[in-house]
Amino acid sequence: MTRGAPAPDAGESPHLVETFVRGEQVFRGALLDVRRDVVALPDGSHATREYIVHPGAVVVVPILDDGRLVVERQFRYPVGRVVLEFPAGKLDAGEAPLQCGQRELMEETGYRAREWAVAGTLHNALAYCTEVIHIAFARGLSPGERALDAGELIELALLHEADLEAAAARGEVTDAKTLVGLLWLQKWRSGAWPLQWFTTP
Amino acid sequence: MTRGAPAPDAGESPHLVETFVRGEQVFRGALLDVRRDVVALPDGSHATREYIVHPGAVVVVPILDDGRLVVERQFRYPVGRVVLEFPAGKLDAGEAPLQCGQRELMEETGYRAREWAVAGTLHNALAYCTEVIHIAFARGLSPGERALDAGELIELALLHEADLEAAAARGEVTDAKTLVGLLWLQKWRSGAWPLQWFTTP
Repeated sequence: MTRGAPAPDAGESPHLVETFVRGEQVFRGALLDVRRDVVALPDGSHATREYIVHPGAVVVVPILDDGRLVVERQFRYPVGRVVLEFPAGKLDAGEAPLQCGQRELMEETGYRAREWAVAGTLHNALAYCTEVIHIAFARGLSPGERALDAGELIELALLHEADLEAAAARGEVTDAKTLVGLLWLQKWRSGAWPLQWFTTP
Repeated sequence: MTRGAPAPDAGESPHLVETFVRGEQVFRGALLDVRRDVVALPDGSHATREYIVHPGAVVVVPILDDGRLVVERQFRYPVGRVVLEFPAGKLDAGEAPLQCGQRELMEETGYRAREWAVAGTLHNALAYCTEVIHIAFARGLSPGERALDAGELIELALLHEADLEAAAARGEVTDAKTLVGLLWLQKWRSGAWPLQWFTTP
């Protein structure tokens, strides 16, 4: 079994890097691909790393012309509650982040966007998962039909940014990608973190 | 096997809730506890949910008297790179979030804090993990000895908030809990999201 984690990017810190020695797949379910690798630490000793291989995901911050944001309410079984989230989903095989964002926004909310921007990326569970979440922005939205998966129950809400922020201040927004999306949105609006917008065909 | 996910909190949305039917542990490693549950959807049909049971964690935003922040640089094998993060760690059995924050801050950085505040909580991987991250703030810091685990390689950096923010704007801060900590820090400083500080003995 080859490794499931990406090849290390040593950057400026080769003295911190752990390298793959051998690995096995210890569980393969319908959703989760779980690996256990033996790695060499910088001092040459060995350690075990257990982690999930994930295809990556995209979260979309969808902005209506009147300034409201399109958010979702969905029951999340692993945390046992209904959570407020920006639309998001996993990359299909070979799919580019922007394509994925367009597809997930349409499938989950019905909205298509005329303009897109790609902000940064996010590691949400770097201790035990390879997941990278790409943060995309969408505006010039027009409504349309949703295409939910069987058994997918997603309610939509259209919230003003101030209301989403107030909910976050009360501790009612707990989803990490949604809070980071909100941070990025506010930084963009303030002029601190610019976005490159482009028009999609 | 009982379920690993928390009992559902239906809140105002009982029509979205999925309920436990039966479950099994499909992998138990040194780190990961992986479950597969059958759940009943609101319409009565069944579906499968695969997820990791996690004890919960704490991330600490440590603020020095001169305003600089204590951050860590650590190689994260699942994502293949060195990542800039606020100090964090998992709850021990029976440990309260604040205790955990004090312990992790001391073990990983050597700092003890005179004042603490608990902000909100974070779900970082709600599609496939029960993990909840509590966000704590620490100030009135005094340096001391670290107590790293064997094989734990963590470098410390003392960064001004403006420098951490500039790194985030360049896409160099990718860790979700660290970005949310930065958001909360800036909201607190602006007066928008107040914190209740208290002094520890």
